[in-house]
Amino acid sequence: MAIPAIQLSLSGERFQVLYTIAGDKQEALEKAEAICVEQTVEFPQDLLPPGSLRDEILGRIEAFHPVDRDHYQAWVSYAVDIAGSELPQLLNVIFGNTSIKPGIRVERLELPQCLLDAFKGPRFGRSGLRQFLKVYDRPLLCTALKPMGLGPKDLAHLAYQFALGGIDIIKDDHGIADQSFSRFKERIQLCAASVEKANRETGLGCIYVANIMAPFDQIMDRAKYAKAEGAKGLLIPPGLVGFDLMRCLAEDDNLALPIIYHPAFQGSFVTSKEQGISPYVLMGQLCRLAGADCSIFPNYGGRFSITREECQAIVEGSEVPMGHIKPIFPTPGGGMLADLKPEFRQMYGTDVIYLIGGGMFRIGPDLVSNCRIWLEQVGGIRS
Amino acid sequence: MAIPAIQLSLSGERFQVLYTIAGDKQEALEKAEAICVEQTVEFPQDLLPPGSLRDEILGRIEAFHPVDRDHYQAWVSYAVDIAGSELPQLLNVIFGNTSIKPGIRVERLELPQCLLDAFKGPRFGRSGLRQFLKVYDRPLLCTALKPMGLGPKDLAHLAYQFALGGIDIIKDDHGIADQSFSRFKERIQLCAASVEKANRETGLGCIYVANIMAPFDQIMDRAKYAKAEGAKGLLIPPGLVGFDLMRCLAEDDNLALPIIYHPAFQGSFVTSKEQGISPYVLMGQLCRLAGADCSIFPNYGGRFSITREECQAIVEGSEVPMGHIKPIFPTPGGGMLADLKPEFRQMYGTDVIYLIGGGMFRIGPDLVSNCRIWLEQVGGIRS
Repeated sequence: MAIPAIQLSLSGERFQVLYTIAGDKQEALEKAEAICVEQTVEFPQDLLPPGSLRDEILGRIEAFHPVDRDHYQAWVSYAVDIAGSELPQLLNVIFGNTSIKPGIRVERLELPQCLLDAFKGPRFGRSGLRQFLKVYDRPLLCTALKPMGLGPKDLAHLAYQFALGGIDIIKDDHGIADQSFSRFKERIQLCAASVEKANRETGLGCIYVANIMAPFDQIMDRAKYAKAEGAKGLLIPPGLVGFDLMRCLAEDDNLALPIIYHPAFQGSFVTSKEQGISPYVLMGQLCRLAGADCSIFPNYGGRFSITREECQAIVEGSEVPMGHIKPIFPTPGGGMLADLKPEFRQMYGTDVIYLIGGGMFRIGPDLVSNCRIWLEQVGGIRS
Repeated sequence: MAIPAIQLSLSGERFQVLYTIAGDKQEALEKAEAICVEQTVEFPQDLLPPGSLRDEILGRIEAFHPVDRDHYQAWVSYAVDIAGSELPQLLNVIFGNTSIKPGIRVERLELPQCLLDAFKGPRFGRSGLRQFLKVYDRPLLCTALKPMGLGPKDLAHLAYQFALGGIDIIKDDHGIADQSFSRFKERIQLCAASVEKANRETGLGCIYVANIMAPFDQIMDRAKYAKAEGAKGLLIPPGLVGFDLMRCLAEDDNLALPIIYHPAFQGSFVTSKEQGISPYVLMGQLCRLAGADCSIFPNYGGRFSITREECQAIVEGSEVPMGHIKPIFPTPGGGMLADLKPEFRQMYGTDVIYLIGGGMFRIGPDLVSNCRIWLEQVGGIRS
C-alpha cells in the first residue's frame, strides 16, 4: 500500500465550521463530504488506509440540515491538531481550497478553548479601549484623514481640527500610504503632534491611528516608528498584508497599541451570500482572533450594498462568547451622513464606533463645529 | 474651504485597470465613476477643490464599452504616484474598497514600465526554471506530498519514490504545515535528503519545494531553514500570508529559490464572473508581479468548477508581455487523472507544469512506476 496505515496520538479535541452550501439535498451532502476531504487529507478517500487518517485527520460532518429548498448547512469538525497553533494554517483548514469551489460559504466558527488558548485576541477590546480613551458611556466617534493627495501638513491640520472638535479616534485613510507627495514619516510626526497639541488645549484624549501598511519587510519598522512618534493605534488591512501580521502587532507587548481592522481587498469574501465568508465570521470572529480591537465595515444605507442583517451579524460576531477573546467594537462607516439616523442608534446601541469620513465635511464650513455637532448626537463631549 | 486646493508635481505616468461592471449603461457608468473616487480620494467629489486632487489624483475613465446588455467594461487610469513602489498599496488602488461592491471585477492590468521597474518579478520564470531543472523540451511534472497526517519519515519515503520515478518538482501539500504529528524541521530535513538521495541514484535533478507557511514572525526563518537544509523551492499561498511576502522571498538574493504560488484562501476572488479578480490577473499578472515562477490553479474537468476558458486566460496572463517581468509556468492541478488528455496537451503545449496529486496513486500499486508512466506521457525521462 502506497500510504501506510498510521495511528496518531492526537488531542481528541475538534473545532467546528458551519458551511452554507448551495444545492439540493444530495448535491449539498456531496459537497459537504468533499469539504471534509479537501480541507484535510486532500487525497482520494478510497485510497486512504484505515486508522487515524480516516478516523481523525479527515473532516467529519457533525450536523446537516436544510436552510431552504436550495441551501443546506453542514457543521464540519476538524482535529485541532491539524491547525496547530498557527493562524494561517487555521484559516487554511477553515477555507483554503474550498474557497475555490462556488456555492460554499463559511457561516460560523466554534473553536474550543484549547485552540483559543493559542491566541491572545484583542489587547484592549471594548472595555480596554474605553479605558484607553477614557470615554465610558456613549458611542465613540472616528474619522479619517483624507483625501489622498494632501501632504503631511494639510493632513495634520485636518487632524488638529478633528481633535479640537472632540473626535475620539482620528485614523489615516487606508489609501494614505508612503507616497512621494505625502511621506509616511513626516505624516506620522505631524499628525501625532497635532492631535497632541489639540488634546492639551481641550483636555481630551483623542488618539491618532496610523496606517502602517507597507512592504512585508518594512511593516514592523513602520509600526515601531508610529509608536515612537506618538501614534496611539494602528490601522491594518489583513487583505493586503495578511491576518497573521495583525495578530503579531496586537500581541506585541512593546507596541501595546489598539488595532483597527480595515476590510480593503477582502470584499470578495462578503459580496455574495452564496460563497465566501460571512461578515459574522470575517469581520467578527476572525478579526477578534487576529487581535483587532475595532472592526471597520460598510454600514447599510451608505454607498456599499451591505444589508442591515449583515451589519447586525457583524455586531453579533464582535461579541459572541469566545473564551478569553474579548468583544470588540463594530465600526460602521462608508457613507455615514451628517446626521445619525435613529435606526442606527437603536441597532448599534452604545458599544459602537461611528466612522464618519466625507460626511464630516457636509454639515457646514467649519470642521471643528461639525465634529461638535456629531459629538452632540452621540451624547456630548463630557461622558 | 476645508480641503485646500493643491498643485502637485507628479510623474504624469498612469497605470490602467480594466473593470467589468454589471448593470445597464447608466448604472455601469455610475459605478465606473464611483470607482474613480473610491480607489483614490475616497471623498465627496463635489467637495474636492480644483487642482491636482481633481485633475491627477482622482481615477479617470479612459474607455467605456459594452460587453453585452448587462455588462460594460471601463478602463480606469490612476497616477502611478499613488501606488508608489509598494505592492500592497498597488493592490489597494486596484481593488481595495471596490472589492466590497458587488458586480465589479478586475479584468486586466496595464502597468507602465516606470511602475514595473519597482518590481523584480520572478527570479527564474520559464526559461530560468528550465535551466535550474535542466529539462528543456517537455512539460514538467509536479506532485505533492500528502495526505496530511503522515509523519516526516513517511512523507520523505513518498518523496524518495516520486524522485526515483523522475518527477521534476516534489512539493509539500499546502496543508502540510508544522503540526504535532509532522514537524516542519524534521520534514524539511528528511524530504530534502530523500530527494537528494534519489537524484544521486537517477542522475536527475528533481527538486523538493517546501511549504513554509508560518506565522508572520517565523516565515523568513522557515524560508532560510528550508534553503539551508536543501529545499530547492518555496511554496507560498499569498491568500494566507500576503502577496508582498511572496515578492520579498522572490527578490531575496540569499534565498534565490524558485517560488510556487498556491491559491488557497483566494478562491473567493475567482468563483464569480460578476465580481472579484479575473484568473488572468490573479493567477497570471499579479502572481508574476509578486515573483512567482509557477502559478498553481485548478484545472478544468477536475474537482473544481473552473472553465477551460478561464484556464486559457491564466495561460495568457502568465505570458503576456510585462516589460522585464518574466513569463511563468501555468501549473494546472486539482484532480488531474491518471492519463493526460489530448486536449490538455493541445491547450497547454510544452510550457506547462502538470501537478498530479492523488492521481499519481491511481495507476497501479507501485509509485515509482506510476511516475514513469506519467513521465512517458509528457515526453520521457531524457529530455
